[in-house]
Amino acid sequence: MTAHTASPAATGHIPVLVDHAELHAALTGLLRGHGIPDHRARLAADALCHGDLTGLDSHGVFNLTRLYLPLLRSGRCDPRAEPRTLTDLGACAVVDARRALGLWAAAEAMDDAVARARRHGIGLVSVRGATHFGCAGFHAVRAAHAGMIGVVASNCGGQRIARPPGGALAMLGTNPLSVAAPALDGHPFLLDMSTTVAPTGRVRVAARRGTPVPAGWLEDATGTPVTDPSAFDRGEAFLRWLGGTPDTGAYKGYGLGIAVELLAAVVSGAAVGPDPAALEGDGRPHGRDDDIGFFLLALAPDVLRPGADVAGTTRSLFGALTDCPPVPGGQPVRYPGWWEAELAAERRRDGVPLPPHLYEELAGLGLFGRSGSRSPR
Amino acid sequence: MTAHTASPAATGHIPVLVDHAELHAALTGLLRGHGIPDHRARLAADALCHGDLTGLDSHGVFNLTRLYLPLLRSGRCDPRAEPRTLTDLGACAVVDARRALGLWAAAEAMDDAVARARRHGIGLVSVRGATHFGCAGFHAVRAAHAGMIGVVASNCGGQRIARPPGGALAMLGTNPLSVAAPALDGHPFLLDMSTTVAPTGRVRVAARRGTPVPAGWLEDATGTPVTDPSAFDRGEAFLRWLGGTPDTGAYKGYGLGIAVELLAAVVSGAAVGPDPAALEGDGRPHGRDDDIGFFLLALAPDVLRPGADVAGTTRSLFGALTDCPPVPGGQPVRYPGWWEAELAAERRRDGVPLPPHLYEELAGLGLFGRSGSRSPR
Repeated sequence: MTAHTASPAATGHIPVLVDHAELHAALTGLLRGHGIPDHRARLAADALCHGDLTGLDSHGVFNLTRLYLPLLRSGRCDPRAEPRTLTDLGACAVVDARRALGLWAAAEAMDDAVARARRHGIGLVSVRGATHFGCAGFHAVRAAHAGMIGVVASNCGGQRIARPPGGALAMLGTNPLSVAAPALDGHPFLLDMSTTVAPTGRVRVAARRGTPVPAGWLEDATGTPVTDPSAFDRGEAFLRWLGGTPDTGAYKGYGLGIAVELLAAVVSGAAVGPDPAALEGDGRPHGRDDDIGFFLLALAPDVLRPGADVAGTTRSLFGALTDCPPVPGGQPVRYPGWWEAELAAERRRDGVPLPPHLYEELAGLGLFGRSGSRSPR
Repeated sequence: MTAHTASPAATGHIPVLVDHAELHAALTGLLRGHGIPDHRARLAADALCHGDLTGLDSHGVFNLTRLYLPLLRSGRCDPRAEPRTLTDLGACAVVDARRALGLWAAAEAMDDAVARARRHGIGLVSVRGATHFGCAGFHAVRAAHAGMIGVVASNCGGQRIARPPGGALAMLGTNPLSVAAPALDGHPFLLDMSTTVAPTGRVRVAARRGTPVPAGWLEDATGTPVTDPSAFDRGEAFLRWLGGTPDTGAYKGYGLGIAVELLAAVVSGAAVGPDPAALEGDGRPHGRDDDIGFFLLALAPDVLRPGADVAGTTRSLFGALTDCPPVPGGQPVRYPGWWEAELAAERRRDGVPLPPHLYEELAGLGLFGRSGSRSPR
């Protein structure tokens, strides 16, 4: 693979630009090498690249050596898993992913939900026994590409990361939620959020960079804001729920986190975070994200309202939002997904910037071939 | 109706306690007097009382003279409306409420969604042509009482209340979202939230009381926090989205607000807020909440996973949360809906406290009978 950097040395803070198609091919090859069938390896590579293309750098190839390769190497993920449908009621199915890689298993399940919505107006595929699926939005936007509304949620299996407001122990994951829909051409609406203020990945990316996080992401045991991201993995700072403090909606973020646990894990029968069975023998949470549950919902307004101009309505809705005048001196008004689509187009054309340490890490896996050539941008 | 107050005069700030059953009967009679059939008048009274029982005072009888009676008197709500099913695909239906009172129309639609979920595992009733439904949680918790997970969303019709982050014009409503599920006995999980930090009703209750709102609810045109609630109706302060500032997740709250618009209005074909047709001839938003859309979804884990102990799983999940030790000196850890259920039980037993001005306002409607007797508590 050819990589480009502003400096010939992949050190310091100057990102290395790698070609998207070559990065994708290299990731596909790596995953295939771990025993994942070709079409599923390609789908998983799509899911990984989605993070780096759209600027969700904490949920892309950054997680290859942190999450996915350890899952495959330890056998906690089965590269050849064939998901099994446990219940099929037409509009709705429950699927056991049988330790499949969530990166492709969630995408296939969403495509199944879309097919069900085409017949029934609504389609739900509820998945258990899965592993980490990357960016929730990668899976939700598949429904938007099919002209539908997609809703995706995932719990974090038995992993406990965030404390209830006023609680002294972590009980729930960062429980992502995503909603996608067709909007303006080439710019689908795409909300992709953790139900905490920030996901752990963004905190760890900041810790690795040595840059502070905004006040409001983390707090210490007394509720005082913490801006040093490294305090999180030292156990000295805790993620706040979306909403911040109880006065400004922390119970809403906490409630959304619980809602995701219900939709993703209780519907499917996956492991739930706040379950005594998720504790080690010593009573401490084991922190493993095995047996994750997914909620993949597709809604087809065109099927529910035949003859209606749904695409016209959504274009009008999102057009009105982007026509909203900004406050004096402000950026143009957009909607979630708009800037991400712009960035993805730019990175597909110009290359995906990888921090030097990440580039070196991936090069160490042989991802960039023998030459590993790179040249100034 | 007998009312009790700590002082014989319903003035000042000491609330008047009114008996719940009598308040409910009086509301039913009043709505029946406006032409609403008896069983639907009772259901609407249930919905109104839910707000006052659970402490969501801004969404209960407070809105009778502000929202519901003006809707009925102006003819914008048809008291005898019979909702019509436009599409029925089994798991999913689209219904035109034909200007019915949302307080009962949403409840009936949720009961329909529950019946569909009993057969198909999932049930969605998508409603358009409706009017304000009161507390979203009243409708969502009906699914929980049936052993299911309920998800409810409503847009605000063509009404524009909140500005996009960085936008100079209001474009969307406060777009409520609610999720409910069985949890610990008598204490269902019940998240009931506006996608803005606070709904307009809570701001107006504070303005009426003359008490400041917490910093973080409102901001002026430059983004500076405002704590004077009366600045909102003067057009000098604007609601923030859940998440607060862009650094701490304002785009998530804004995205959730758009997601509600899609689920409630684009699926059903109701009026959408950011639509040029929602402007008056002079280009200003008309601010009316006609043609509201609802999204009422029921999920039945017991149907999807026959034989599984779903109730045991949810009891274990919520039991673990309430077993979480609090931070030193803190309140016990609970979940959304727990305190509301406690308060409702107390108020069913001891009476519903109404602020004196609200009591007088309702008494002026003849709601408390000829005697209007009240005695010190």
